[in-house]
Amino acid sequence: MVRLAKLGEFGLIDLLNKNMLYDPEKVIAGIGDDAAVLKPPGTKWQLLTTDMMMENIHFRLDWSQYYQVGYKALAVNISDVAAMGGYPSHAVVSVGIPEETRVEDIEELYRGLKEMACRFKVNLVGGDTVKSPGPLVINIALMGEVEEGRAVFRSGAKPGDLIYTTGFLGTSAAGLYILSHNGDYPVELKEKVIRSHLLPEPRVAAARILSELEGVTALDDNSDGLAAELREICRASSAGCLIREKSLPVLPEVEQLACLTGRNTLDWIMDGGEDYELLFTLRPERQEYIENALGKEGILYKAIGIITHSSEGMVLEKEDGAKETILLQGYSHF
Amino acid sequence: MVRLAKLGEFGLIDLLNKNMLYDPEKVIAGIGDDAAVLKPPGTKWQLLTTDMMMENIHFRLDWSQYYQVGYKALAVNISDVAAMGGYPSHAVVSVGIPEETRVEDIEELYRGLKEMACRFKVNLVGGDTVKSPGPLVINIALMGEVEEGRAVFRSGAKPGDLIYTTGFLGTSAAGLYILSHNGDYPVELKEKVIRSHLLPEPRVAAARILSELEGVTALDDNSDGLAAELREICRASSAGCLIREKSLPVLPEVEQLACLTGRNTLDWIMDGGEDYELLFTLRPERQEYIENALGKEGILYKAIGIITHSSEGMVLEKEDGAKETILLQGYSHF
Repeated sequence: MVRLAKLGEFGLIDLLNKNMLYDPEKVIAGIGDDAAVLKPPGTKWQLLTTDMMMENIHFRLDWSQYYQVGYKALAVNISDVAAMGGYPSHAVVSVGIPEETRVEDIEELYRGLKEMACRFKVNLVGGDTVKSPGPLVINIALMGEVEEGRAVFRSGAKPGDLIYTTGFLGTSAAGLYILSHNGDYPVELKEKVIRSHLLPEPRVAAARILSELEGVTALDDNSDGLAAELREICRASSAGCLIREKSLPVLPEVEQLACLTGRNTLDWIMDGGEDYELLFTLRPERQEYIENALGKEGILYKAIGIITHSSEGMVLEKEDGAKETILLQGYSHF
Repeated sequence: MVRLAKLGEFGLIDLLNKNMLYDPEKVIAGIGDDAAVLKPPGTKWQLLTTDMMMENIHFRLDWSQYYQVGYKALAVNISDVAAMGGYPSHAVVSVGIPEETRVEDIEELYRGLKEMACRFKVNLVGGDTVKSPGPLVINIALMGEVEEGRAVFRSGAKPGDLIYTTGFLGTSAAGLYILSHNGDYPVELKEKVIRSHLLPEPRVAAARILSELEGVTALDDNSDGLAAELREICRASSAGCLIREKSLPVLPEVEQLACLTGRNTLDWIMDGGEDYELLFTLRPERQEYIENALGKEGILYKAIGIITHSSEGMVLEKEDGAKETILLQGYSHF
């Protein structure tokens, strides 16, 4: 077991830099100088996003392996790039490391990062490694690309547009609930929801299709819970929405765990967040094209409601037909 | 006095986003969507760097105002872009904030950031604001640009090249010493060195001149102390160096403070770091052009030594003519 103090900062950087590969079409110089040097993307627009993940706020090391922390830290940034209709290109990674951390653990964190980077063709071109007097902190800044004029914003939704989500909702929140509450739940129920929480899958392939598809008017990733993301789209688009509870896609495992734990799947969907599915709106006359675009590629999607006028607010139609206002209870720091 | 808990995360983001201006030639969409959308830089190469600043490791709030923390966090990133010969373009800022922090303090931090951003034409296009269960953490990722083929690496120095620095060395380390040791030192001595430590000035103007000047073979910023930066250039260039102690530029205030505190200016220069001056090498036949390039613009610079063969190692010629090996005692995390 090697403690970081023994290896030193430069030893750590050398270790992490080992076997780092770059796309020579994109990277002139990666790690090793004051800044990375990148080739310009031609006429493509560029995307830039950043996320900070803080121990005991965003993850806990008694629930998450270091590998998973690294994997997820990059995954959530890739999801932000996907949510603009783009694909990722380059990342820089800063890690604040408590002094007594084992070198093996940081290698594991980087193994998760590098695996995600390889899968999504992200060049890890730089970073910073510092000591933390408190929690483990990992910050990633990610660049991405999208064809000129093809970025999909939150602001284009119009009354009458259909609201869709990819995949299933509430899965990650169910996983977090299981991780954070003791209880003897069946493995076949737990496995998928815990995986969804710890190793989320950014929906780049779906996002790329949606950025090419005419009539997609708004796009967002479902990172903060459905209620918060609907509010983002409605606010940016000066619109309201009507969501049908019976249309919300939920895994049977999540339904069963809600039943076993006495929780409510609707709360997990609305306020849980971290599903990293794509929420998008589509002009109604383009409805017939969506199956050919997404379904044919094996991408799950579901219409969950409709954009309305802003004066109508954000409304949930319950299974019994009753209507209620969608309130924001999603996670907020501070 | 408003605590963050009262304002909430979204209130904080709205507050910080207020009056944010972007260069419309470069930014299609800034803060407010999943990622910023940027126009491509034509044929220019792009630079990307990141730095994490951690409370009680890189700064202390009993010595630094929040304004200074924000200012310096961006300044050190700009210095990294300058050290490649480039100029900064876009930044994303993540802040991990202890729960009991006052909103006014975070506004002050952003005031320092925005002031630096305005001065150096940096578009602050995104960020992340999270709760910290420990120290205040600020991470910046900065993009920059440099004309195609004009980036200056650390790796181009050849034996016979002259070694130069801009400005003065050891100033920031003297400032840190005064901040961290009690003592009744004259204000006229303290002021400049403390300012140098808390509000460093990135040398973008000098860097831009050097990236245009033929014969500049290596460039670095002096962030980790002269010994560490010489090692970076020598390692990357497979070279050695000879530095003349009597040529090292030191402010008279620093000399006097060294005398008063019983410290050694050479230690401050070699191991102190954070001067953010530029260290560069120049082909000897281009010596006569440097005065016209830098001196004419009012930029201070000084020849401090010469690049040698790697077999000669890194050598310091003392004032009495004796030679000694330059050892690395610079700051290392862990």
